[in-house]
Amino acid sequence: MTANRARRRFLRGSLAAGSILLGRTAGAATPDTPAAASAATPAPAAPYRNTPGQPFTPYGQPVRHERAVVRRIAANRDVAGNGVGLTPLEDLEGSITPSGLHFERHHNGVPQIDPARHQVVLHGLVRQPLAFGMAQLLRYPMQSKTLVIECSGNSNVAWHREPMQRPVGSMHGLVSCSQWSGVPLALLLDEAGVDRKASWVVIEGADGFDFSISIPLSKIREDCFLALYQNGERLRAEQGYPVRLMVPGWRGHLHVKWVHRIEVTSAPRLSRNETAAYSALMPDGRARIFDFVLDVKSLITTPTHDQTLPAPGPTMISGLAWSGHGAIRAVDVSVDGGNAWQPATLQQPVLAQAFARFSLAWNWRGKPAILQSRATDDSGRVQPSRAALLAARGHNNFYHFNGIVSWKVDEDGSVSHAYA
Amino acid sequence: MTANRARRRFLRGSLAAGSILLGRTAGAATPDTPAAASAATPAPAAPYRNTPGQPFTPYGQPVRHERAVVRRIAANRDVAGNGVGLTPLEDLEGSITPSGLHFERHHNGVPQIDPARHQVVLHGLVRQPLAFGMAQLLRYPMQSKTLVIECSGNSNVAWHREPMQRPVGSMHGLVSCSQWSGVPLALLLDEAGVDRKASWVVIEGADGFDFSISIPLSKIREDCFLALYQNGERLRAEQGYPVRLMVPGWRGHLHVKWVHRIEVTSAPRLSRNETAAYSALMPDGRARIFDFVLDVKSLITTPTHDQTLPAPGPTMISGLAWSGHGAIRAVDVSVDGGNAWQPATLQQPVLAQAFARFSLAWNWRGKPAILQSRATDDSGRVQPSRAALLAARGHNNFYHFNGIVSWKVDEDGSVSHAYA
Repeated sequence: MTANRARRRFLRGSLAAGSILLGRTAGAATPDTPAAASAATPAPAAPYRNTPGQPFTPYGQPVRHERAVVRRIAANRDVAGNGVGLTPLEDLEGSITPSGLHFERHHNGVPQIDPARHQVVLHGLVRQPLAFGMAQLLRYPMQSKTLVIECSGNSNVAWHREPMQRPVGSMHGLVSCSQWSGVPLALLLDEAGVDRKASWVVIEGADGFDFSISIPLSKIREDCFLALYQNGERLRAEQGYPVRLMVPGWRGHLHVKWVHRIEVTSAPRLSRNETAAYSALMPDGRARIFDFVLDVKSLITTPTHDQTLPAPGPTMISGLAWSGHGAIRAVDVSVDGGNAWQPATLQQPVLAQAFARFSLAWNWRGKPAILQSRATDDSGRVQPSRAALLAARGHNNFYHFNGIVSWKVDEDGSVSHAYA
Repeated sequence: MTANRARRRFLRGSLAAGSILLGRTAGAATPDTPAAASAATPAPAAPYRNTPGQPFTPYGQPVRHERAVVRRIAANRDVAGNGVGLTPLEDLEGSITPSGLHFERHHNGVPQIDPARHQVVLHGLVRQPLAFGMAQLLRYPMQSKTLVIECSGNSNVAWHREPMQRPVGSMHGLVSCSQWSGVPLALLLDEAGVDRKASWVVIEGADGFDFSISIPLSKIREDCFLALYQNGERLRAEQGYPVRLMVPGWRGHLHVKWVHRIEVTSAPRLSRNETAAYSALMPDGRARIFDFVLDVKSLITTPTHDQTLPAPGPTMISGLAWSGHGAIRAVDVSVDGGNAWQPATLQQPVLAQAFARFSLAWNWRGKPAILQSRATDDSGRVQPSRAALLAARGHNNFYHFNGIVSWKVDEDGSVSHAYA
């Protein structure tokens, strides 16, 4: 559906978004009459109308009225520094996640690294091992890409047998999208000279957890880069300052933070985080490992649990879709639990491996409804229903949930998470 | 030039970006020998290698090592709240300006507005005057656009007779680019019903300065919107919280902050800020007013004043280009003061009315050089030389400088601002 068609549909239920009529009613108003003008005068002056405002600030911060918009922290009580901070997706618009709200996932907290003393060592099956200081890396050619990062454990509560009642971000907020800038790894590999026997690269972070992961050399050469900037400025500590690996379209745990070692090898390391963890346990007891690419997925971000529709009438349904396989081609929305589907509007431009914002104007008639979104990417992959995903993967899973998520609207306008 | 060609050119001067050789030299190294591996082991463990790191944070902040990356504030000493905060362009990468570093320009400081009490009143030549509370506006259909905002007074020091010696952001940093999301004004106008006599719209901000401006109704209908979000999250106070006008591709002062009144009219208001200020004084003493569209422009952001090239060899030249008339089609770079030009690489995708990041790998031979960039947009407009701009506009100007900016590199690698 085009944006114009969506707009016309929205206006058919006009005034219903809650604007307040001023002055005389439509028929009687003549635009230039003092009555209309007077009715349209703002209320008595607020204090800031008569006094100078606050001064300039070197680095801006959110206003206090929005201080509830924060990451929801779910930290492991038994292991210091192990846990997550989820992005409050329900509070955001557009397709960029600001750096302060980008999700966090750490295994041993956030190391505080002095960039003047930090190096990235590139060694293994190379002609010439090299070490790169941060000042040196900053002088290399850079590239920038707007990329989604989704933790492999995102949406893990959706595997539960009963739907948890939380806003979308508190269950599915281990996914964010920012513009990342850094140095193509192919450039550094060419400088070191890669041996013909090489086929894998092992990347290690400098945190106390020694987080390490194996990635095929072909992917590293294709489009991986060492990010030094997020959304224009240098990385935040919790996003890997001073340097993080970006693996476009692939799962979040591969995006190693605080990179300090890159080893070119002829085999994967089979580290804990690519075998015991971040693998998918199948119904037959075997695990899927090296399942790298982000599945096609979408989430309605509004309405969501903890929101109440104020009244029947035009209601915006909005959300986010993404796929590691390419760009989102379409998002369909259902308001009846998946029987009928309507195409949503996609905010342009739609970028590969990034958030696509979708929206649909829905005329809620005050009856119970089940809202769903279903994404299709330009490789033709379609987001599966939860039932289909469970049939294929079983109930033992923790990772890689990309099934359709459902929100139930009751007659009183309250919204709850549902399995449908 | 393609990114691959730029990469090959950069590698021809290989290792010169300053990577450090490890272990044996290239000829002698066999990749699997313990010697090479041992040489490539990182230095003795930093404290964060053996202890849990810092805990999770609800809202992330820059690291302390980057605390010098802030807006440079130039406030008027005589008028409280009048001044600017400039974006440190030389410290940023990519094409997004993070909200905390987006430039500020205020006439009476930053009002602290309670969104629960704020309304946007739409009146004048309309069938039905309307008032919109913030909760109501948030339920309307939204659109998102990545847009540059440039203050009409940006680069005003470039009209001076002698080149000021400052980093690029301190002279030209009244320009930034973010993703903005909000409600199309056409939708609200349709709801109010615009009279046939209407041809202009006057927008007023709620700050104590009563900042107001006139914009043709056709532009308002075409693509203007009331922004509620910047880079995904609600506006910062200094960017107009709770609601700001966006005027894609047009000059910065039109992007009224803290919008509280929108009056549909049949003539411009001829307010102070569209007559005495924000107009261009021509050599014959007349002023250009209602000169709305941002001119095509580019800036080299690195190298810049206060930077020193560390050594002859491969050196990245990088910068930003934009045009209110459309998308940037090409940026050419000269290293000899404008005699010879080479095409720079443009970071993809290039979006209309947004920052385009350009870069060129330059092999600096240790001799004096004059670096320049020249942007061309897809309407065919070309950024003029400073001399050509001065010939047309004279020396009395303060606004709308879009001439080519020059940086002089001396033999010792130091960089200064130059007129060339």
